[in-house]
Amino acid sequence: MKTSIAAALASVLLSPLALAQPVEPAPLERDVAKGVTKLMAAGLQDNIGLQFVEDLTTEIGPRLAGSDAEARARDWAVAELRGLGFSNVAIEAFDIPFWSRGVERAEILSAGGQQMTITALGGSQPTPEGGVTGELVRYASMAELRAADASDIEGKIVFLDESMTRTQDGSGYGVAVRKRRNCAPVAAEKGALACMIRSVGTDHHRFAHTGMMSRDGAVGTGTGVAISPPDADQLTRLIERGAVTVKLEVGIETRPAAPSGNVIAEVPGRGALADEIILLGCHLDSWDLGTGAIDDGAGCGIVVGAAKLIANMPGRTKRTIRVVLYGSEEVGLLGGAAYAEQHADELAKHVFASESDFGAGKIWRFQTGFGDGALSYAAAMHRALAPLGIGPYNNSARGGPDIGVLSATGVPVVSPGQDGTDYFDLHHTPDDTFDKIEPDAFRQNVAAYAVFAWIASETGWDFRTGPVAADE
Amino acid sequence: MKTSIAAALASVLLSPLALAQPVEPAPLERDVAKGVTKLMAAGLQDNIGLQFVEDLTTEIGPRLAGSDAEARARDWAVAELRGLGFSNVAIEAFDIPFWSRGVERAEILSAGGQQMTITALGGSQPTPEGGVTGELVRYASMAELRAADASDIEGKIVFLDESMTRTQDGSGYGVAVRKRRNCAPVAAEKGALACMIRSVGTDHHRFAHTGMMSRDGAVGTGTGVAISPPDADQLTRLIERGAVTVKLEVGIETRPAAPSGNVIAEVPGRGALADEIILLGCHLDSWDLGTGAIDDGAGCGIVVGAAKLIANMPGRTKRTIRVVLYGSEEVGLLGGAAYAEQHADELAKHVFASESDFGAGKIWRFQTGFGDGALSYAAAMHRALAPLGIGPYNNSARGGPDIGVLSATGVPVVSPGQDGTDYFDLHHTPDDTFDKIEPDAFRQNVAAYAVFAWIASETGWDFRTGPVAADE
Repeated sequence: MKTSIAAALASVLLSPLALAQPVEPAPLERDVAKGVTKLMAAGLQDNIGLQFVEDLTTEIGPRLAGSDAEARARDWAVAELRGLGFSNVAIEAFDIPFWSRGVERAEILSAGGQQMTITALGGSQPTPEGGVTGELVRYASMAELRAADASDIEGKIVFLDESMTRTQDGSGYGVAVRKRRNCAPVAAEKGALACMIRSVGTDHHRFAHTGMMSRDGAVGTGTGVAISPPDADQLTRLIERGAVTVKLEVGIETRPAAPSGNVIAEVPGRGALADEIILLGCHLDSWDLGTGAIDDGAGCGIVVGAAKLIANMPGRTKRTIRVVLYGSEEVGLLGGAAYAEQHADELAKHVFASESDFGAGKIWRFQTGFGDGALSYAAAMHRALAPLGIGPYNNSARGGPDIGVLSATGVPVVSPGQDGTDYFDLHHTPDDTFDKIEPDAFRQNVAAYAVFAWIASETGWDFRTGPVAADE
Repeated sequence: MKTSIAAALASVLLSPLALAQPVEPAPLERDVAKGVTKLMAAGLQDNIGLQFVEDLTTEIGPRLAGSDAEARARDWAVAELRGLGFSNVAIEAFDIPFWSRGVERAEILSAGGQQMTITALGGSQPTPEGGVTGELVRYASMAELRAADASDIEGKIVFLDESMTRTQDGSGYGVAVRKRRNCAPVAAEKGALACMIRSVGTDHHRFAHTGMMSRDGAVGTGTGVAISPPDADQLTRLIERGAVTVKLEVGIETRPAAPSGNVIAEVPGRGALADEIILLGCHLDSWDLGTGAIDDGAGCGIVVGAAKLIANMPGRTKRTIRVVLYGSEEVGLLGGAAYAEQHADELAKHVFASESDFGAGKIWRFQTGFGDGALSYAAAMHRALAPLGIGPYNNSARGGPDIGVLSATGVPVVSPGQDGTDYFDLHHTPDDTFDKIEPDAFRQNVAAYAVFAWIASETGWDFRTGPVAADE
């Protein structure tokens, strides 16, 4: 955010972007519009949200799902949220299958024992004690691997050297993540000793990117590791020169059940709409390699910061703002599933759900998943957000990792689209640390979440099907 | 290099930068000038030098001084250089004290056992078996540490949190490296358990930068490790919140003597000047964490590529071009010292020495260490190099790491100044890999080295004191 706050606010009502909307925005009452102005200015100067990420990533650090650290993070968050004045702060517990990495080591025996930078994928099987040694067989894509004869693979180590496309909207991930999920089981089925994938990432640093290869937190089929992009380049160059033999060792620790949980906190509404919930989510767990700053400490800081700004408004909001810091997102969206189950009987009372889980980059577009009759409400939110530099809009959002399950039951969603051009440079690596958050971009997020949650709370609009009485 | 080759060459004789020289350039004979044109064009399309780095960093990889890998690199280089047609290819052996890292681990006990990214500094003492545990005491500079009372340090672990300045010419390193050399011994003298320094580097990634803390390859005083910049930030934030306890474990392996050596190869001269040597150097050893691409595979590729281009010229050069791939530079400039000793009786025959050991960035300035009477020769070289975008000039060069010892005995030096703005982002880290070399910038270096070495060979100029008969 380089735009001055004053200049930004001056254009709230007459933004060309907003006027370009095909649907006429529903009007905002004067008090609601004044609140927008106030919250936007406050969001752009946020320190509460940013401090929340700093403290979480510093005092707790990595927070692997089901680990002691994740439990400490829950207790820490409860204390912080109470300290910030939130109501109904609670841990909603559930159990998960536990997986963590042990030893992980790979060396290129045929090239003088060069050590590689690798990391086990979540849910990987271990290698037998002492590791496995095998010749590499390289495939450029999952399709190539699927088409390969088992006789070319049996007793070897598969090296899947598929690259990921850098995109602003993160769509390269959906494609790239398939190899992370599928390489080890497909390779195992064809008799491979293991699969090594070029990391799912867009950087060119000596970091391996972890991430789940199985579903629902379970241990998967086969041994799967990721290697850093420079190591993948090195293997490709070596394979051009002749046969490459690698020794790979992967150890893991598993337990059938470990405690996890979601942390909930509310800014309670008042009056007739008080039981209607605006859900702002993020996930509290992180992978173990970095300190989980962009994934997803930032998201938690954004929604906590935004909710706190709304709590600071004079009087009480009409609807309830509920912040949900999900647990165990990384290992299978388990916190999202647990929430949907534990709150099944109040899902109809969820006005919409929105989650921040794509780093701390600036929001560049606005997406909703509203009923067709509610597009004028989306347009009103979009127009209010335009001074923050949020341009394109569509109504095709279906919710992110933890709220997709709510969307599937009919809960409307709001998905502010962050600029993720650089997100997968850091994602699931040791380099995901607090210094990577750009404060002004982070604050633009806080401002945006505060603005659209505020509008939803104070207008009383129904985003499921269309216009209803706006007043209680 | 975005300039087209043709456009660049067209301006060789009339560069405004060259005309701005205070000293009139000595004229180049027509055949020498034609050779400059030819070599520059060939250098900008070099593949030999670039292939040399690619092969070295791929087939050998890391090449720690005194290790088996360094020995393999020497044998590999001998075969490559012979294959390229160089003459008098030989290994000149010497022994060094050997040091290598073993286990290295640090965790922040007072913050949930968060693991830190650290690496032992070369020459560090090990910790006692099982490691040491101590409270951190932070100093912002070596001066602060020197001024501190031993009573504040005894039994603790010193954390020296001094930053490095990013500079184009690398001058930030000279300042920053002092903490790497001095922290552990000064801390040990005051009773510290160890010293952890913020890495000598300019990046903000989760890599620790290694490098020697002692001299001449020997084991030094005290235990010294570097931590990554994000880890240094983390410690600083934690210290603001209260006492921080760290457990540190460092293992090392040492041997009193291990084999190292320099690899020499020549493009032999002809006639009366054939015994006069133009030395182009680099170092073949590297730190063990990366594959030694920018430090200093690139330098070796540049001087080998340049010498090969000269060897390809029709006929034979007047003077001898000698390429020296030094061993054991990283651990105390030991190859440079060995060369000076082993070639003591022919140092007077060294026309000049030049080394490439600052990555693969574009050369932006030209520096010489010539006798005052030879400045018109420097000006002639500088004018010839101007089309490569090489602007500023001075005569204050005193030689780099391995040729400083020659400069001290009166051998003139040529020091093309590379742009090192990003060099210390990668220097001595696992991230020093081949993909970091920008081919066009690398080729500009090859062209420059070929041009000034060619001029020196064919003019027969004396760079020590001043004009002498230019013809044999």
